[in-house]
Amino acid sequence: MTPSDVLRSHVSGSRSSDGAAQEPSGLFTFSQQVDSWVVRTAKPVSYEIRFVDDVLDPSSSDLVEAGSRGATGGDAAPVRRFVVVDARVDLLHGDRIRAYFDHHKVEHRICVVPADESVKAFDTAAHIIREIDEFGIARRHEPVVVIGGGVLMDIVGLVSSLYRRGTPFVRVPTTLIGLVDAGVGAKTGVNFNGHKNRLGTYFPADLTLLDRCFLNTLDRRHISNGLAEILKIALIKDGGLFQLLERHGGLLLEEKFQGLSSTGELAGAETLRRAIHGMLEELQPNLWEAQLERVVDYGHTFSPTVEMRALPELLHGEAVCVDMALTTVLAQHRGLVSETDRDRILATMRALELPSWNDLLTGEILADALQDTVRHRDGQQRLPLPVGIGGATFVNDVTALELASAVEDLRALQDAGRTAERGTR
Amino acid sequence: MTPSDVLRSHVSGSRSSDGAAQEPSGLFTFSQQVDSWVVRTAKPVSYEIRFVDDVLDPSSSDLVEAGSRGATGGDAAPVRRFVVVDARVDLLHGDRIRAYFDHHKVEHRICVVPADESVKAFDTAAHIIREIDEFGIARRHEPVVVIGGGVLMDIVGLVSSLYRRGTPFVRVPTTLIGLVDAGVGAKTGVNFNGHKNRLGTYFPADLTLLDRCFLNTLDRRHISNGLAEILKIALIKDGGLFQLLERHGGLLLEEKFQGLSSTGELAGAETLRRAIHGMLEELQPNLWEAQLERVVDYGHTFSPTVEMRALPELLHGEAVCVDMALTTVLAQHRGLVSETDRDRILATMRALELPSWNDLLTGEILADALQDTVRHRDGQQRLPLPVGIGGATFVNDVTALELASAVEDLRALQDAGRTAERGTR
Repeated sequence: MTPSDVLRSHVSGSRSSDGAAQEPSGLFTFSQQVDSWVVRTAKPVSYEIRFVDDVLDPSSSDLVEAGSRGATGGDAAPVRRFVVVDARVDLLHGDRIRAYFDHHKVEHRICVVPADESVKAFDTAAHIIREIDEFGIARRHEPVVVIGGGVLMDIVGLVSSLYRRGTPFVRVPTTLIGLVDAGVGAKTGVNFNGHKNRLGTYFPADLTLLDRCFLNTLDRRHISNGLAEILKIALIKDGGLFQLLERHGGLLLEEKFQGLSSTGELAGAETLRRAIHGMLEELQPNLWEAQLERVVDYGHTFSPTVEMRALPELLHGEAVCVDMALTTVLAQHRGLVSETDRDRILATMRALELPSWNDLLTGEILADALQDTVRHRDGQQRLPLPVGIGGATFVNDVTALELASAVEDLRALQDAGRTAERGTR
Repeated sequence: MTPSDVLRSHVSGSRSSDGAAQEPSGLFTFSQQVDSWVVRTAKPVSYEIRFVDDVLDPSSSDLVEAGSRGATGGDAAPVRRFVVVDARVDLLHGDRIRAYFDHHKVEHRICVVPADESVKAFDTAAHIIREIDEFGIARRHEPVVVIGGGVLMDIVGLVSSLYRRGTPFVRVPTTLIGLVDAGVGAKTGVNFNGHKNRLGTYFPADLTLLDRCFLNTLDRRHISNGLAEILKIALIKDGGLFQLLERHGGLLLEEKFQGLSSTGELAGAETLRRAIHGMLEELQPNLWEAQLERVVDYGHTFSPTVEMRALPELLHGEAVCVDMALTTVLAQHRGLVSETDRDRILATMRALELPSWNDLLTGEILADALQDTVRHRDGQQRLPLPVGIGGATFVNDVTALELASAVEDLRALQDAGRTAERGTR
């Protein structure tokens, strides 16, 4: 905790200090004249990410207990929850969600929101806020609950951070990218003015409940989408995780992390655990991004612009993967990654059924993307590049020419990869 | 600073811990199985409030140096500032503002915004954000500058806290309420869905430059408006400040804190210093309102609803003053404030040309207001009441009947006060 409770008053001779002593009323001698105050403090933050089995099982109390910071409504007061649910999740699991809260005698309102990247906008947040106003929640002991994917968690996170300047919330991710990425960190946000996550806050959910069951009803493409963020962690900091993906990626995709085989169970559990642990290792010491050189920004240099321009073609993880493919080739050109490793990386992307090419990789779009990212990184590229598999470095001198050469090479590798794939069929 | 850099992994026997050792690949033995992670950290915050003389004087470098956390654009890079200016301030001081930045060779864009409570909305924030996008600013070393009153500072504070999840900003308040209240704390916000400051963040400006010169062009009503928040601090924690207002309030209003007389100079400087110091003493240990019993919430129990329903009739300080008048009578009914002190308080309100009555003080509106405030204070009233002059307590048991009786009495006192005033003319 240790907030440094310092309210330091810089005392200096100021324009009216002479007069102060002369004032007959005595009111002006209260203290010395002060020209400036410096306020120093620290906001303590703690949050939990917890694996649970079948969070909607009525016998489980995790969800109903989550995030309530000591009810002050009195024992007789009913437990109340405002619950935001992704429209597709509602179709699949809406009955169980309602039954769960009914079983626990929770007065609840379910707010169903269709969520994909194209509605990740302030308007969607505003709609949710109006519904919260209508339901009415106490500021601290009635946390907002969100059950959905990364997009919805980001939106509801923003809503929670803004509502009365901060209302606790609880996340239940239902997608793989939600489990390993959006549900792990502190970032909230919406797209604005054509820019990815241009508006947002750092406001972690008090608790995130990770339940792999939801992945069973997820389509294959969304499993791939989440695997892209796992691959990111693997490439820049965890060679062992890469080996897992390289060896078992296809199985994970096939089994949707449901542990249908013994290998699938072990590989799935270990993959999730390593991905989340690696992410947290990077986030925890730098939760507010005081340090702008972040390895977890790998794959996020060109992808924000590519993803927004491609809407709704690419899912987030897919756009990230395209960026990683390009920068892998760039790293190989610089001698940071061997040709063998480059090919292993691109082959793993293919095995995970992720795109490593997009026609938006033009010189103009990459230049626009880099310019905005340089602003985002306060005037420098701070571009993370892989070093081998599992290491990373930062560079600040990538040129348009170098990018063009990487693009050209990636395109050729893509074509060769496709040809090779057709050959093996 | 001392952020507790703890990433604690709760290790427990989990469903796949047995299997981990059996996996032939060896990849699963990386570490023990983990079911939950708890992330603990703290965000260090520091900000400064500094008195300056004539901030727009070209020879002063305060404003151009303010808030830049070490330029990383290189020495050759031009200094750039996005500056939001209240429309009325622009009329009065726009030429000097432009000349100031020109003189310092700052590449700047002035974004002129008409600001009053009725446009304190997300749309206004969105308009400013679009202009920032067009101008383009680096994330850390090109702080947004806001020159205006409390409403505009709150809006631009929200913009800054949301833009790329946080961009530094610098405040130059041009109103009295801006100098002693909105410019001192960490709160940002906009009204939403008919509710006062329903959306916002805690995000203090890196630096607030207090320049009394601006008050010279402020109309008398806005001086009164600021005096209301000063009176609030006086009533709940600084009897000496109350004496200052009681004795010199009329002079301060007349001289607009420009120190036209020696007494006016001394009283003005001391009043500002004490008001700000008192405010900071309350805010610093509770910047994120972990503690919901806040004496600075005095006058802010019923006023948010009254102010919004009265729009655009009441300025913020005026609505706060009406709330304080009502709760002063309520406190007197409870024996917390003597009749004499009650009358001194009401007389001082009149001397400061502040309203102590509004026709919206009906049972229904007060009940609505209290209900919303109870939600805001997490289920309890936590209503601050004055104890004598300069002290405060919190109560949780105010009833509709008690409120009605206070309203009735306040109305009678008002009528009597008006009659007495007419008698002395």
